Amino acid sequence: MRVAIVCTGDELMQGVIVNTNAAWLAEQCHKLGSEVVWQVTVSDDEGPIGEAVQEATSKAACVLVSGGLGPTTDDITIASVEKVFGKMKGTSLANKVGTAPGVQVTLGKAVVFFLPGVPPELYQIFSDSILPWLRERQEGAHAERVLHCFGMREAVIDEKLRNVDLCGTRLSFRVKFPEVLLKVLGQKAEKAAANIRQCLGDVVYGEGDAQFSQVVGDLLRAKRTTIAVAESCTGGQIADLITDISGSSDYFERGLVTYSNRSKMELLGVAEVTIQKHGAVSRECAVEMARGVRVRSGTTLGLAVTGIAGPTGDTAEKPVGTVHLALAWDGGEQVEHFCFTRERKAFKQLVSWTALNMVREHFL
Amino acid sequence: MRVAIVCTGDELMQGVIVNTNAAWLAEQCHKLGSEVVWQVTVSDDEGPIGEAVQEATSKAACVLVSGGLGPTTDDITIASVEKVFGKMKGTSLANKVGTAPGVQVTLGKAVVFFLPGVPPELYQIFSDSILPWLRERQEGAHAERVLHCFGMREAVIDEKLRNVDLCGTRLSFRVKFPEVLLKVLGQKAEKAAANIRQCLGDVVYGEGDAQFSQVVGDLLRAKRTTIAVAESCTGGQIADLITDISGSSDYFERGLVTYSNRSKMELLGVAEVTIQKHGAVSRECAVEMARGVRVRSGTTLGLAVTGIAGPTGDTAEKPVGTVHLALAWDGGEQVEHFCFTRERKAFKQLVSWTALNMVREHFL
Repeated sequence: MRVAIVCTGDELMQGVIVNTNAAWLAEQCHKLGSEVVWQVTVSDDEGPIGEAVQEATSKAACVLVSGGLGPTTDDITIASVEKVFGKMKGTSLANKVGTAPGVQVTLGKAVVFFLPGVPPELYQIFSDSILPWLRERQEGAHAERVLHCFGMREAVIDEKLRNVDLCGTRLSFRVKFPEVLLKVLGQKAEKAAANIRQCLGDVVYGEGDAQFSQVVGDLLRAKRTTIAVAESCTGGQIADLITDISGSSDYFERGLVTYSNRSKMELLGVAEVTIQKHGAVSRECAVEMARGVRVRSGTTLGLAVTGIAGPTGDTAEKPVGTVHLALAWDGGEQVEHFCFTRERKAFKQLVSWTALNMVREHFL
Repeated sequence: MRVAIVCTGDELMQGVIVNTNAAWLAEQCHKLGSEVVWQVTVSDDEGPIGEAVQEATSKAACVLVSGGLGPTTDDITIASVEKVFGKMKGTSLANKVGTAPGVQVTLGKAVVFFLPGVPPELYQIFSDSILPWLRERQEGAHAERVLHCFGMREAVIDEKLRNVDLCGTRLSFRVKFPEVLLKVLGQKAEKAAANIRQCLGDVVYGEGDAQFSQVVGDLLRAKRTTIAVAESCTGGQIADLITDISGSSDYFERGLVTYSNRSKMELLGVAEVTIQKHGAVSRECAVEMARGVRVRSGTTLGLAVTGIAGPTGDTAEKPVGTVHLALAWDGGEQVEHFCFTRERKAFKQLVSWTALNMVREHFL
């Protein structure tokens, strides 16, 4: 089926935001075997909106219109289209995550779907109401597999996959920091995905809709393991990731964001002499933090990180980006050390994922 | 000057890549005071490319065409346009980072610029050859103000602003959850922004590039205040937000993610009887958490939240979304209670911002 996409929004015309809705809709249609033949973007103005929708209905049998359905004064999409086509009698499409419902209406030879521009609302309405409609009318979908990778850079993955048999499928890369997504599209996607997994091993942490903290959480649950976390430079983000998963209270006991030296000593029992001798950002301190949080909270595992997020706080021996990670268990521990030269927020994210990956690898 | 943007590429039509070229070009034009009136994206096919460029020349005085200039067989932009307009005699625009030069040509009443689709090449040719051309023809840039709001829904803000004098400017809304951005565009943007601020009061937390946790952090620093945080349902996200700001160690002492009842008692001194009588998700528990974290870490302020993020964990009296927030200081405290019916991640985010907003309002 031929599809046209019309997006409205001043912010798209001013380049304030990138048009991810158009890309997302196009991707969904393409996956279903529908061909997107026309994408138009116009400002929140009556004339251009009406004109764009009219033109789209002449080019495609299905028109997806995004934006301008909300409650505010700049939400004028329906009114603009009615100026051209007259009063419309549409079917309402349930919006489960926001207020403005979608609308389905036949205009000329085309079926037009109006969607809110807010991405989660657009995703939900499309998935629930439009996807089944398109699927019924589809002319043969592509098989697709998505592999989630962490712990290896895109260029290295690309290099490693050079000699892997992709079985005639099309492979594309997408960096969704800090992970890399591999998309395999084609008849033999399943076989190609298996070949890729064999080549990359544990770098692939999941497929499809896999969520990293869910994967780690599932492992903790399956192994009847509990965990406590002591964080310095990640500032609570490791705990935040773990608790993104419903039911995480079954294995997550507590998290301590010990930002000050005092809190490291008081709450984790890090020795003052350790900090004096090696500094708070040191292998020694990380180990004492991991041991301390484990013993004091009575969990199976203790996970700790300490590092310099920057942009300030570096020393001659310890540049910004230095980080020590430790995982402690009954009778042992593992320690790792990196220097991630990333801006502050990306650094926190990369360290948090790396810490969770230590837990994951502990079980593999 | 009115500008139209035409992008070509199968990968854009299949959603394989997001159209960042359109956003970048739109942003550049907008900054120069040019109005982007039309954005079209088509596949690498002769018919649609010719049609799109022809239509664009009827809508704008300047047309920017991106993609299809390279050496490969799918680079057919020039040939497609010549099918419509006949043989063109254009001026070549130097490409310093790639092989295919840009082309400038007058078609009908419009000046059309052809650019390669490879982003760095497009950026360079636009900046060197098109930007000066547009600047010479600009009619006066727009004044613009962006206001960041938190704590009031978009629809309510819209309602409140109905009677505010916008001084002939154009106002647009953007939800960037959990905040709402108001953009004021026009000659008298400054005056209009002042009127809006007067109407909305403290709901506006900043302007321009303002970051919420920076605003809160600046207040803490200015008031020489230190803070410690005790979190349950937000799982570390409050600490994560605070520590996104470089230098936050000056005012952030520690954060405790007390997920289990045991950790609430051990680390914060919450009384067992409080949890037995009122439950861990209660006003009473929130207050004891805030007091406990403040006293034990020796900070000026203690901030605490306890709630049910869901989707499981609700009871008859306490539905999913219930949350209690408390802020304690020497000799007093403030407690708030909400029921936010949002999915888990959005709930955590909204509660974290609401908690930081209590700190902000404490100083206002």
